Amino acid sequence: MAGENNVGLVLLDFWVSPFGQWCRIALAEKGLSYEYVEENIMATKSDRLLRSNPIYKQIPVLLHDGCIIIESLIILQYLDEVFPDTRSLLPTDPSERAHTRFWADYVDKKVYGCGSRLYTEKQLEAGTEMAGILKTLEEELGEKEFFGGEHGFGFMDVALMPFTTWFESFNRYWGVNVEEVAPTLAAWAARCMKRESVSKSLYSSEKVHAFISGMRKDAGFE
Amino acid sequence: MAGENNVGLVLLDFWVSPFGQWCRIALAEKGLSYEYVEENIMATKSDRLLRSNPIYKQIPVLLHDGCIIIESLIILQYLDEVFPDTRSLLPTDPSERAHTRFWADYVDKKVYGCGSRLYTEKQLEAGTEMAGILKTLEEELGEKEFFGGEHGFGFMDVALMPFTTWFESFNRYWGVNVEEVAPTLAAWAARCMKRESVSKSLYSSEKVHAFISGMRKDAGFE
Repeated sequence: MAGENNVGLVLLDFWVSPFGQWCRIALAEKGLSYEYVEENIMATKSDRLLRSNPIYKQIPVLLHDGCIIIESLIILQYLDEVFPDTRSLLPTDPSERAHTRFWADYVDKKVYGCGSRLYTEKQLEAGTEMAGILKTLEEELGEKEFFGGEHGFGFMDVALMPFTTWFESFNRYWGVNVEEVAPTLAAWAARCMKRESVSKSLYSSEKVHAFISGMRKDAGFE
Repeated sequence: MAGENNVGLVLLDFWVSPFGQWCRIALAEKGLSYEYVEENIMATKSDRLLRSNPIYKQIPVLLHDGCIIIESLIILQYLDEVFPDTRSLLPTDPSERAHTRFWADYVDKKVYGCGSRLYTEKQLEAGTEMAGILKTLEEELGEKEFFGGEHGFGFMDVALMPFTTWFESFNRYWGVNVEEVAPTLAAWAARCMKRESVSKSLYSSEKVHAFISGMRKDAGFE
């Protein structure tokens, strides 16, 4: 992806990782070119990944100018800070920043925490909890076009969007139909998907569902 | 705590909470006065707490100028941003900020994650893991006086310090003697404790141990 805006960024990533997708969407929103390196984290992790992130041995990792940036929420904030001339994802007002960080953290804790039970638990019992989480998010969205409000598509939109590719699996496994449970949220997801930064960073719900189904089979759940 | 620097800050907190202590140390480092409100979270939570944090119903919560700030890591960043004339806890360089955020997050995930097994698990099996975590932290500290390096006592020092009051319990329950396992870290903790911002925000290891022991008894583990 070398291009005019190439500033020596390398992203170690894995195609279906929602946290890797956070970084991809953010980099695209900022118009920053980067080298994308697919890590086969399901098989053998590369020496570069293990050297870069010896603590967690996980993607995503951003390499930039001799620096190693780890953890997707931290990567997003780093990109805002080190490239101040690009489109900022966090608002500038401190209380709005805190509010946005709270909801991005909520996505990490709740949507990922509950959603990943799709491939960590044999029992399919988390649907009611997920429906509640989606309703809470819909309430936070309210009548806004994006979670970023007057600032448009922002940090929280980036954080939640990758998980919309799990919606198909929420329906098939848990019977949680997002269009029925949280129609405003479903409409928001469709709006976001029209952005090239998003559509080019995500994979189809079908492909993601096949991955989740494969994980369940590997774990002996199916 | 009304004082010259009173700027209408209210902290909803619980004495033994390490995350509440993060906020107390940060506020003291910044010389900001505030109203401290002890929440009896083991019994009945106040209406103010439930209204302020309906999602998690947890302390700490910072109330400021009509804003409600939740989650201790977010509160610390808010304080840096909204009071830029006070001592900054995060460094200014983006890569140093990312590095500091990574380690503060490590404390949250690992030290709290493993440490809280003292009161959530009957089996006392987490000692080896905790010893590894402490050694990793000692390695990160290296020969620095504080984790903040040339910037002195900072964000990461704030994040780790409250957990040093658990060291006594690590020893008594897990046989993990921090002075033996990680002597440089033990010396760092003693250095930090000399700061008034720290010593006035924390409680004694004995008192904290009695609390943890009480939690274990309530859970039927002892």
